[in-house]
Amino acid sequence: MKIIERAQIEEILAGLDLVPLIEEAFRGYSAGRAIVPPVGELLMDKGEVHIKYGAIRGDDYYIIKIASGFYGNAALGLPSSNGMMLVFRQDSGEPAAVLLDEGHLTDVRTAIAGAIGAKALARPDVERIGVLGTGVQARLQVQQLAPLFETREVVAWGRDPERVAAYATDMAAAGFRVEAADHPGAVAAVCGLIITTTPSTEPLLQAADIRPGTHITAIGSDTTEKQELAADVLALADVVVADSLEQCHTRGEIAQAVAAGAIAEDKAIELGVLLAGEAVGRTSAEQITVFDSTGVAVQDIAIATAIVEGAQRD
Amino acid sequence: MKIIERAQIEEILAGLDLVPLIEEAFRGYSAGRAIVPPVGELLMDKGEVHIKYGAIRGDDYYIIKIASGFYGNAALGLPSSNGMMLVFRQDSGEPAAVLLDEGHLTDVRTAIAGAIGAKALARPDVERIGVLGTGVQARLQVQQLAPLFETREVVAWGRDPERVAAYATDMAAAGFRVEAADHPGAVAAVCGLIITTTPSTEPLLQAADIRPGTHITAIGSDTTEKQELAADVLALADVVVADSLEQCHTRGEIAQAVAAGAIAEDKAIELGVLLAGEAVGRTSAEQITVFDSTGVAVQDIAIATAIVEGAQRD
Repeated sequence: MKIIERAQIEEILAGLDLVPLIEEAFRGYSAGRAIVPPVGELLMDKGEVHIKYGAIRGDDYYIIKIASGFYGNAALGLPSSNGMMLVFRQDSGEPAAVLLDEGHLTDVRTAIAGAIGAKALARPDVERIGVLGTGVQARLQVQQLAPLFETREVVAWGRDPERVAAYATDMAAAGFRVEAADHPGAVAAVCGLIITTTPSTEPLLQAADIRPGTHITAIGSDTTEKQELAADVLALADVVVADSLEQCHTRGEIAQAVAAGAIAEDKAIELGVLLAGEAVGRTSAEQITVFDSTGVAVQDIAIATAIVEGAQRD
Repeated sequence: MKIIERAQIEEILAGLDLVPLIEEAFRGYSAGRAIVPPVGELLMDKGEVHIKYGAIRGDDYYIIKIASGFYGNAALGLPSSNGMMLVFRQDSGEPAAVLLDEGHLTDVRTAIAGAIGAKALARPDVERIGVLGTGVQARLQVQQLAPLFETREVVAWGRDPERVAAYATDMAAAGFRVEAADHPGAVAAVCGLIITTTPSTEPLLQAADIRPGTHITAIGSDTTEKQELAADVLALADVVVADSLEQCHTRGEIAQAVAAGAIAEDKAIELGVLLAGEAVGRTSAEQITVFDSTGVAVQDIAIATAIVEGAQRD
């Protein structure tokens, strides 16, 4: 069994094109080829642990992902979230690898899902990328768009001006010019591709903010409480896509809009169905599209498998 | 994070006295100090995986155990069951160790639970140890009794005479004299301590087989289908002890006897309560006692913690 540390994982990641692999994982998920049992949860005094696991039928490996959040870690000088992925052979159960990624692969696979949604739904000639939030996803999501869209212009909004400034500096190093916006609506006013990456529980964008032709990738809301888009944004949208219809019935932006009575549950289509060409996405430059990403275990399966195979080639 | 291979695990095990540690884990479990979420299950075409995890409040570590069974492994020259335990710090979530025990620690902790039950319930002057079955538990259970009981006389029954002969040879090397019995009742006729370790789904022992003073440790039945003791054996017993009352309501010998109407659900007491001195076990040499072991995550927590601490001392 291989132990693969974070530095080696980052090195392997740099040589991989994960977009087609994760697209294929979403197609497999929507085609019913994935086995994804309910998430395991261990709640302790100082932190909590989530265990996500599953397999895609016919793949070489199955995956168990352990992700933890420990609230007091900052005081110990440690990151609050941690994690690893375990990779086992699907034909024999033998352990193949432990990926000590400290949660990084989850961040990357989340960013790639956003890029896949934007590639499928946004106008290819989008002039500026708008970002709400200044954290890890605000960085990784935009970086993942670099090979897919020509623009390097970013308009960002965050609650803390210092964090916005730090974000601008970091993204400049990655080749993007970042302008700060005063409020979320100011981002939507000038950007045709908007990525929402905050943990907000109050809507940041209203239907009145959204211009024709806009695509929104909604990343931040992945629970029943979090919400970045007002329900009328999803009502306004011509196309609404979910990574998992099953999950989006109970959590994320679509669940909020359905609960508010703004859209019918069957308005949303599933990303893997769209990618398989079995549903229609954007059909005109004026349409408004939304991709609601809540995170699916097949993304973990695809990225962990790619790292293990990458390590075998090394 | 430490990776501890099976050879090192066996070396550390040899220097440990696990009985008091696992007794303490059972006391903690019965006192409500354990957090043990439902078992995760991943069912695939060629095998299945169970994920057991939990923590004892106030301990240093939490544990995730992965145990797999792959039916076609014999044809690949591999053992059908495999497994590992992951150990994380309970204060920070940081990974502490991966124990690549291939399922051995589960075998050992099961054998130690049996020994704890026998120590608590069997007559100390028992003259012979009876064993039904000839597999791993038939070996380990008896070996774990060596420090607790003086006798080295064993009477064994198994369906396959060749396996019984191999068992006798192996146990002779461990210091036990093994006599073969023709049928399960012949074991019960001469042994005051009986360990049942088969995967039988039909009762092997009836009430009429059991002599006064006998203690039975029932290991084999840990599902809703398996049964080694007829329901009337549990009705006959003066004391019935479960490792986990909650589990024994749905699986194992007690569940079978309750379902058959042979005993009331409240006849059974929990091992940790008995070990804490809050319930009464055997009170006379003539009483019949039964310990029903179905396996509890606190056993895994205790043994994995002991290995990690043993490795730190190395």
